[in-house]
Amino acid sequence: MSLRDRPLKHWGWGYADEQPSAGELRSAAAGLREHLGFGWEVPELPAALPALRASRLTAPTPLAEICSAQNGIRARHSYGRSYRDVVRGFRGDYPDPVDLVCTPRSEAEVEAALEWAVDAGAAVIPYGGGTSVVGGVEPIGLDGYAGVVSLDLGALDRVLEVDEVSLSARVAAGASGPRLEAGLAERGLTLRHYPQSFQHQTLGGAIATRAGGHFATRHTHIDDFVESIRALTPTGWWESRRLPGSGAAVSPDRMLLGSEGTLGVITEAWVRVRRRPRFRASASVRFKSFWDGARAIREILQAGFGPANCRLIDPDEARLTFAGDGTAALLLLAFESAHHEVEPELALSLECCRDHGGRWDSVRGSDRSGDPSGAWRDAFLRAPYLRDTFVAMGVISETFETAITWERLPEFHASVTAATRSAVDEICGSGRGSVTCRLTHVYPDGAAPYFTVLAPARRGAELQQWDAIKAAASDAIIAGGGTITHHHAVGRDHRPWYDRQRPEPFARALAGAKTAIDPSWSLNPGALIDRP
Amino acid sequence: MSLRDRPLKHWGWGYADEQPSAGELRSAAAGLREHLGFGWEVPELPAALPALRASRLTAPTPLAEICSAQNGIRARHSYGRSYRDVVRGFRGDYPDPVDLVCTPRSEAEVEAALEWAVDAGAAVIPYGGGTSVVGGVEPIGLDGYAGVVSLDLGALDRVLEVDEVSLSARVAAGASGPRLEAGLAERGLTLRHYPQSFQHQTLGGAIATRAGGHFATRHTHIDDFVESIRALTPTGWWESRRLPGSGAAVSPDRMLLGSEGTLGVITEAWVRVRRRPRFRASASVRFKSFWDGARAIREILQAGFGPANCRLIDPDEARLTFAGDGTAALLLLAFESAHHEVEPELALSLECCRDHGGRWDSVRGSDRSGDPSGAWRDAFLRAPYLRDTFVAMGVISETFETAITWERLPEFHASVTAATRSAVDEICGSGRGSVTCRLTHVYPDGAAPYFTVLAPARRGAELQQWDAIKAAASDAIIAGGGTITHHHAVGRDHRPWYDRQRPEPFARALAGAKTAIDPSWSLNPGALIDRP
Repeated sequence: MSLRDRPLKHWGWGYADEQPSAGELRSAAAGLREHLGFGWEVPELPAALPALRASRLTAPTPLAEICSAQNGIRARHSYGRSYRDVVRGFRGDYPDPVDLVCTPRSEAEVEAALEWAVDAGAAVIPYGGGTSVVGGVEPIGLDGYAGVVSLDLGALDRVLEVDEVSLSARVAAGASGPRLEAGLAERGLTLRHYPQSFQHQTLGGAIATRAGGHFATRHTHIDDFVESIRALTPTGWWESRRLPGSGAAVSPDRMLLGSEGTLGVITEAWVRVRRRPRFRASASVRFKSFWDGARAIREILQAGFGPANCRLIDPDEARLTFAGDGTAALLLLAFESAHHEVEPELALSLECCRDHGGRWDSVRGSDRSGDPSGAWRDAFLRAPYLRDTFVAMGVISETFETAITWERLPEFHASVTAATRSAVDEICGSGRGSVTCRLTHVYPDGAAPYFTVLAPARRGAELQQWDAIKAAASDAIIAGGGTITHHHAVGRDHRPWYDRQRPEPFARALAGAKTAIDPSWSLNPGALIDRP
Repeated sequence: MSLRDRPLKHWGWGYADEQPSAGELRSAAAGLREHLGFGWEVPELPAALPALRASRLTAPTPLAEICSAQNGIRARHSYGRSYRDVVRGFRGDYPDPVDLVCTPRSEAEVEAALEWAVDAGAAVIPYGGGTSVVGGVEPIGLDGYAGVVSLDLGALDRVLEVDEVSLSARVAAGASGPRLEAGLAERGLTLRHYPQSFQHQTLGGAIATRAGGHFATRHTHIDDFVESIRALTPTGWWESRRLPGSGAAVSPDRMLLGSEGTLGVITEAWVRVRRRPRFRASASVRFKSFWDGARAIREILQAGFGPANCRLIDPDEARLTFAGDGTAALLLLAFESAHHEVEPELALSLECCRDHGGRWDSVRGSDRSGDPSGAWRDAFLRAPYLRDTFVAMGVISETFETAITWERLPEFHASVTAATRSAVDEICGSGRGSVTCRLTHVYPDGAAPYFTVLAPARRGAELQQWDAIKAAASDAIIAGGGTITHHHAVGRDHRPWYDRQRPEPFARALAGAKTAIDPSWSLNPGALIDRP
C-alpha cells in the first residue's frame, strides 16, 4: 500500500488508522483534563459521515477515471484542517461540499481537467495536502458557479530532477514533505522546510500560500527556496526561468507566491536544496522573563547570526506544553551546517543570552542523541493529532500568528493578548483557559509572535465561541499594525482583516491581473479578492 | 551650495565641474590608448547643447514653480547614462526630449503634479537619479500622448525617521546614496547598498528597478532591504505595512519592486539598515583559471558563508583594469561584521580556495589602511567617469550582466563570450578590443556573470556598432537560459529580449494590473509592457 492509498480521516488530522480508539481517547482526555483543569469527562465520538448533497457536476468520459464524487473524498476536500474545520467534520456538518474531486496524473490531465471545468462554468479550487487552517480550500460563496471542482495535485508527487552542482531540484507540486525529502535524501540532500503540516502538505500548496517552515531565521518562508515555478492558468502556461537571481522587472515567481490558487495551478517548481547537516550545536536557555529572551534574540539576529532554531516560549506556555515549570521563558537555540562546526556561532549567540540574564545547563553538540531539537521537532509534528483529541473533549484549541517590528512588539503583544484574553473571559468564563505566546520566527527587524488559545468549549457552540475569540484577536492585530498572518495564509477566514491590511490599489491590481489571465474567475474565487 | 544645486553634466556622468579639461582629457586618452592599443589620438570634445524642440506642455500656475522646460534640464532628463546615452548626449543628439521636468517638494505636490499630468493626457516618467543604463527614463514611442513629463523625485531626499530598535529607516524616495548614508551615519548605521551609481542613484529608483548593490551575497538586490513602500498611483496611495515578514497573499512590495515606474510613483520606503561594520577580514586570491575560482566560490556559498565581497575577475580583465598581470584570475574575498571578528569565516572560506588551487599573500584584518576592498570600492564608483573619457577617445566601453545556475555557467559563459567576441570581430575588426568577464554576485545555486566590452569605435557609427554587439550578446543570453538583466533593469533597451524571457500569462497579468490602477496608461508607458 503506497502512502497515497492509506486512508485519511475525513474530518481530522492524518491517517484514519492513527485515530485513537474510544478507550485510548478517554484515557488521553482524562490526563489532559487534569493538566488543563477543564474539558469534558466523557469525550465525544466523531459522527458518522453523512450523505452529502448530490454532486452538481459529472465528469466527461475522458476525465471520468481521475474524477470522484465519492462521499468521503468530497468531504475530505471540502474543508482544510483548522479548529473550525475539525469541529464541523467531527459533527458531520457538510452543508456545502465540493461537487467533484479531480486527481490528474500528468500535466496533460491537469490541462484537460482545467479546460473542462472552466468551460463547464465550475469554480476550480487547486488542492495540495488540504492542510489549510484558514479556509483556503473551502467552497463557500460560490453560488454563481455551476459547481465546484477540487483539483487535487496529489498524484503529481515526485522529485523529477536533481541538479547536484547548483543544489536545486525540480519537484512536482503534489509532493508531500516526506515524499520530497525521501527523493532528496537519496543524494544526501534536503530542502529543510518543515511546516507543522510537513507530513501532508505539498510543495505546490506551500508555494501558493507562502508557507513558513520551522527554520527560525533566513529561510523562513518557502519564497526564498523557489528558483522557478511552472503553473497552468486558464489562458496558458506560466513558467519562469531557473535563475539564482534576477533584476528583470517584477518577479513572476513572487506574483505566484501567495496567490493561493487564484492565478494558476502550480504543477512544478525548481527549489533550492542543501546538503544534509552534519554539524549541530544547541542549547536550551532559560530567561526570567519573555522580554529578556526577546532582547537576547534581537541582539543575536542583528549581529548577523542565522540560527536554524530560535524559538522563545513564554513561561505559561512552557508549563502547558510540559517544557518547563512556568517560572522561566525558554529559548531553544540551535545552529546546523553541512560544512563546518557551529559551536563558535552558538557560543557567540549565548554571550548575547548571558548579557540578558539567560542561563543554560549545557551545550549539545553534533551527537543527536538526547538532542531536544529532534524531540522538539517530533512533538511539533505530532501536535495536529492532539488537536483532534481536544475537539473530542471539549477544549477549544487553536493558534494564530502575526509579525511585527521589534520596537512595537511589547505593546503589540500586550494589546493582542489583552484583547484575546478578554474575549476568552467573556465567552468561556472569566479566568478560564489560557492565552500564551511564543516567537516562532525572528528577523533582524522584528519577530513573529505565535499565540495559542486553550479554553473550555460549550458543546455545539464551539464555532461561535472560537469565531468571536478569533475576531477579537484579529481586530487587535490589525489595529496594532501587524499582519493578519505570518505563515498561515489568508484563505477565506482572514479575508475581513486582510482587506483592511492590504493597500487598496494593490487589491485592484491583483484583481486586474486575475481578470487578464482567468477571465471567468474560475480559479479559487473568493480567496484573496472579490470579482470587481 | 547644496549637493542638488551643483550643476550636473547634461550628457555624461556626474558633476559638470568634474569634467576634465581638454588638456587633461588628451593626456588621459593618450595613456589609455597605449594600454588598450586603440582609440583616437585626438579626443573629440562634447558638442554644445542644442536648442531642443519646443515643449508641448505648459504647467498650470500652481505647479509652475516646481516645473521647468529649461533646455539643459530637459536634456538631462531625456536620457539615462548608458553608453548609448552618453554618445548621444556628447554629440548633442536629442531628437525626442521630455517636455517638462517637474520636481515636487512634498507628497502633496507629487499628487498635484500627477493629477494634472494624467488629466492633461501626458505620459509621466518617474525620475530618480537618472542613472538608468537601459533606457528606463527615455521618452520614446510616446506619440499617443499630449507630451511627456519627467517627474523628478530628487527634492524628496531625506532620511525621515530612524528606528534604532528594529534597525529600520523611513527614507524619502529621492534620497541619493550619499544623502541616505549621511542621514544614517549620524546614528552609527548604514544601508550597505552600493550600486556603482551610488553617488547619484536614489532609493526610489533602486526599488523601482530592483537595483543590485556591491554586496556579493545574501543582500544583493534592494528587494531584501525593503520593509515597506509608499507609492502614488493615478488611482490612489499604495502603502504597505512595516513588517519583518508576512505570508499574507502576494507581497504588495514585491509587485512594486521592479515595476520600473509603470505602477506607481514611489515616494517613501522603510528599509532595513545595520550597524556600521567594525570588523573586517579580506584576501585577494589568485587562481590559475577563472573556473578554479568559480568552483571555489560555489563551495564557499554552498557551505553557507555570506561574504560581503566575493568578486572573481578573469585574467584578461585583471590585466585591463591594472589589477593583475593577466596570468591569473583574481578573487576579492571580504567579510565584515559590526558584532564579531570575521577572520574565522575568512579562514574557512580560504580553505575552499586552497582546495581549488587558490593562492594569496596575506590576510588583511580590521585595519582598513592598505585594504584593497576600500580602494576597490573607490575605483568601482569612479568607473562611470572614465566611460565619458572613452566616448571622447573613440572607445566603445559598455558592460552587460546576467545570471545563471552553476551547472550551466561554463557552457553559458562560452556561448555568450563567443557570440559577443564574434560580433566585435565583425563590427570593430577581427581580434580588436576585448570581451572580459567577472562574477559580481554569487548565490548558492548560481552566479551573475558581468561582461565588459572595450572596442574601437568608428566616429559617428558608435550606436549602430554597440547595438549590434549588444543584440548578439543578448540573443546568446536568452538562448542560453539566462536573464536579460541581473541588476540593470529592463527599461526600453532590453524589451525585445525581456519579452522572450518572461512567462506570457505573467505579461498579461502585469498589463491587467496596470490597467486597473493606471487606466490611461500614463505611468512610464513602453517600459516593461505594452498597452493591450
